[in-house]
Amino acid sequence: MSVLIRNGHVIYGEDFEIVKADVLIEGNRIAKVAKGINEGADTVIDAKGRVVSPAFVNLHTHSPMGLFRGLADDLPLMDWLQNHIWPREAKLTREYTKVGAYLGALEMIKSGTGTFLDMYFFMDAVAEVVEESGLRGYLSYGMIDLGDPEKTEKELKEALRTMEFIEKLNSDRVQFVFGPHAPYTCSIALLKEVRRLASEHNKLITIHVSETMAEIGQITERYGKSPVVLLDDIGFLGRDVIIAHGVWLDSRDIQILARNGVTVAHNPGSNMKLASGVMPLQKLLNAGVNIGLGTDGAASNNNLDMLDEMKLAALLHKVHNLDPTVADAETVFRMATLNGAKALGINAGAIKEGYLADIAIIDFNQPHLRPVNNVISHLVYSANGNDVETTIVNGEILMLDGEILTLDEEKVIAEAERVSEKLA
Amino acid sequence: MSVLIRNGHVIYGEDFEIVKADVLIEGNRIAKVAKGINEGADTVIDAKGRVVSPAFVNLHTHSPMGLFRGLADDLPLMDWLQNHIWPREAKLTREYTKVGAYLGALEMIKSGTGTFLDMYFFMDAVAEVVEESGLRGYLSYGMIDLGDPEKTEKELKEALRTMEFIEKLNSDRVQFVFGPHAPYTCSIALLKEVRRLASEHNKLITIHVSETMAEIGQITERYGKSPVVLLDDIGFLGRDVIIAHGVWLDSRDIQILARNGVTVAHNPGSNMKLASGVMPLQKLLNAGVNIGLGTDGAASNNNLDMLDEMKLAALLHKVHNLDPTVADAETVFRMATLNGAKALGINAGAIKEGYLADIAIIDFNQPHLRPVNNVISHLVYSANGNDVETTIVNGEILMLDGEILTLDEEKVIAEAERVSEKLA
Repeated sequence: MSVLIRNGHVIYGEDFEIVKADVLIEGNRIAKVAKGINEGADTVIDAKGRVVSPAFVNLHTHSPMGLFRGLADDLPLMDWLQNHIWPREAKLTREYTKVGAYLGALEMIKSGTGTFLDMYFFMDAVAEVVEESGLRGYLSYGMIDLGDPEKTEKELKEALRTMEFIEKLNSDRVQFVFGPHAPYTCSIALLKEVRRLASEHNKLITIHVSETMAEIGQITERYGKSPVVLLDDIGFLGRDVIIAHGVWLDSRDIQILARNGVTVAHNPGSNMKLASGVMPLQKLLNAGVNIGLGTDGAASNNNLDMLDEMKLAALLHKVHNLDPTVADAETVFRMATLNGAKALGINAGAIKEGYLADIAIIDFNQPHLRPVNNVISHLVYSANGNDVETTIVNGEILMLDGEILTLDEEKVIAEAERVSEKLA
Repeated sequence: MSVLIRNGHVIYGEDFEIVKADVLIEGNRIAKVAKGINEGADTVIDAKGRVVSPAFVNLHTHSPMGLFRGLADDLPLMDWLQNHIWPREAKLTREYTKVGAYLGALEMIKSGTGTFLDMYFFMDAVAEVVEESGLRGYLSYGMIDLGDPEKTEKELKEALRTMEFIEKLNSDRVQFVFGPHAPYTCSIALLKEVRRLASEHNKLITIHVSETMAEIGQITERYGKSPVVLLDDIGFLGRDVIIAHGVWLDSRDIQILARNGVTVAHNPGSNMKLASGVMPLQKLLNAGVNIGLGTDGAASNNNLDMLDEMKLAALLHKVHNLDPTVADAETVFRMATLNGAKALGINAGAIKEGYLADIAIIDFNQPHLRPVNNVISHLVYSANGNDVETTIVNGEILMLDGEILTLDEEKVIAEAERVSEKLA
């Protein structure tokens, strides 16, 4: 299949140069970017007045949690978890989780996300949703053993079962990732075994690290070191590890992350909403750490809108450092696209010949995106997810002019309401 | 004229109770809110799956500055002003400013704002735009004399000319407000005369106060006191004064604001983007100060989206205080509606019999607003301006199902591009 996107403002290459050009997609790759492409194509999209952007890479989320959106806000983390989220999660079935994953997939496609890194339960169900939706999903089953050896076994088994399930799908869009939940919820034995298995099976690992001060206190009390030092000491870290949050990192932690080539998935919306704290973005960037961007789950954000998230990232670090030059628009846009793709080891996040055809077309014919003085700035500071008109992943059109082509939007929304009532 | 809005989820009354009901508008007022209203109406709007919300009150903006959107981001305030904004503002004509005001009006209507408090130049032109657009505009000419007595005279004259122009329009939607720019750009003589004139003519005053640390330093050096103490000492403050920003306020300042019944217009987006600092929201609320919400101009935000702004307000104060219970959704929603209306002395900001018919209808049939677990939370944390479908101000429908009825959207956007090129 081929798609030709004509007359758009294209964000071209790894330097995000803005050019007026056509984009030709052949199969799942970008074949050509040039003015006045004459080749015919199966589908031609007129992108006049539109911006042709790399689709976004959401580097940390819990996609089914949209079911819990708005159910418990403005609460301390533990009250939120213990009295609201966990009791509802205990009622989750495979079927309910799948409905949540459908809702999340819809939301991501609608707001121009092409790829996401997920951690949750019933990930085989989520894998089916990813396959059907056309998204690119990196899926981890969230393992928690709380130091119980029996639980360690059980969690590893479920992870391996999920891995097998996903491998059987034999989809280049759906990939398994190991997902030990966090150093404070996983035993050293579990973490070590995950490290071994990930290397053996050549899989990525994602894990929550240094999200809250409480976690730092707990880990320091238990092990006499920070979570990052702990993970380094057991040989856990590497280029294949993506830590989520990384809010409370000291200089030594940052050096360790840099030395090991670890990626940090930054979640400004969640860190702000749960009052977790502010990630030391500038220090991490200065140390050369790769930083991607994530929304976290919709229960602590409360959406999966990467355009929204870019604005939060850019604004948070400016005010926190009292320095408006921090987290400039291009840096943040890179976090939301190329850096995320780099962490996942895929050739995506840029519009250039040879890259995967993961594209979001954004409607700039709107007052809040005019005059078109600066495309990247408008995407970071002015745009929102609803501005995305068309989403293409792996060369397949998932949404065209606002209409979802791969899922039944109305049905998914109705199901989500139904399940939400059952979980109440 | 009468409008009947049927079957929506209505945010009812001053306590924002969610009820399934119809809303009947007669003339410019809300006549009735009840289930199954049988009265006929000139226009009937089906709001099934929609939320019927009070329209938003943007309590601080510079509406024509959308022309400069994205032209200069990620810069220190003085570099931004001196090298980018001021040189362009020097080229502004009445015609160009009017185009900017049209663009701002479009953006506000599209994102559900009904009322705004503005400060800029050529405010007679802005007044014409407000009149035509159907919005409710409180308009101040921004006076700056920098201590030059000749300039003092000139600025007061321009303000009074603007006042006369606006009064001649004889519109209940367009009101004049005195707008001395700030204590660091205005002489004591100007401020005192403004105070006298405002009382004489029964007009509101708006002024930038305590926005940056640099301002605090400058005023303290010049007068030996804080900007708020200075204004209090010259008898400037009162219930009719709305200060914008109020970022750097100490306990004494806060007590003075509370004692005088001054309203603070909070601008989290701008304060974050320009790295000005974080307003002491909780302390101001504890002291009983009325707080409204504003976007500031689109050059420092970069949009006029009050839904976006609510999220920024709610998130910023949680992370700044490391307390997720601060700035809960209802408090922030109140800032964006009732508190703004209260500051302006209008009976708006709530959906209730007798209130002005200023209403935004928001489309909840979208994945990021489902399940409808909590309407106010969804508006604050998940929604964005594009979710607004219909905007009604003073009983008149300004936008219906996304279509602007009072302005020519395409023409305004084309004009904005044209003017932007001339200002480059």
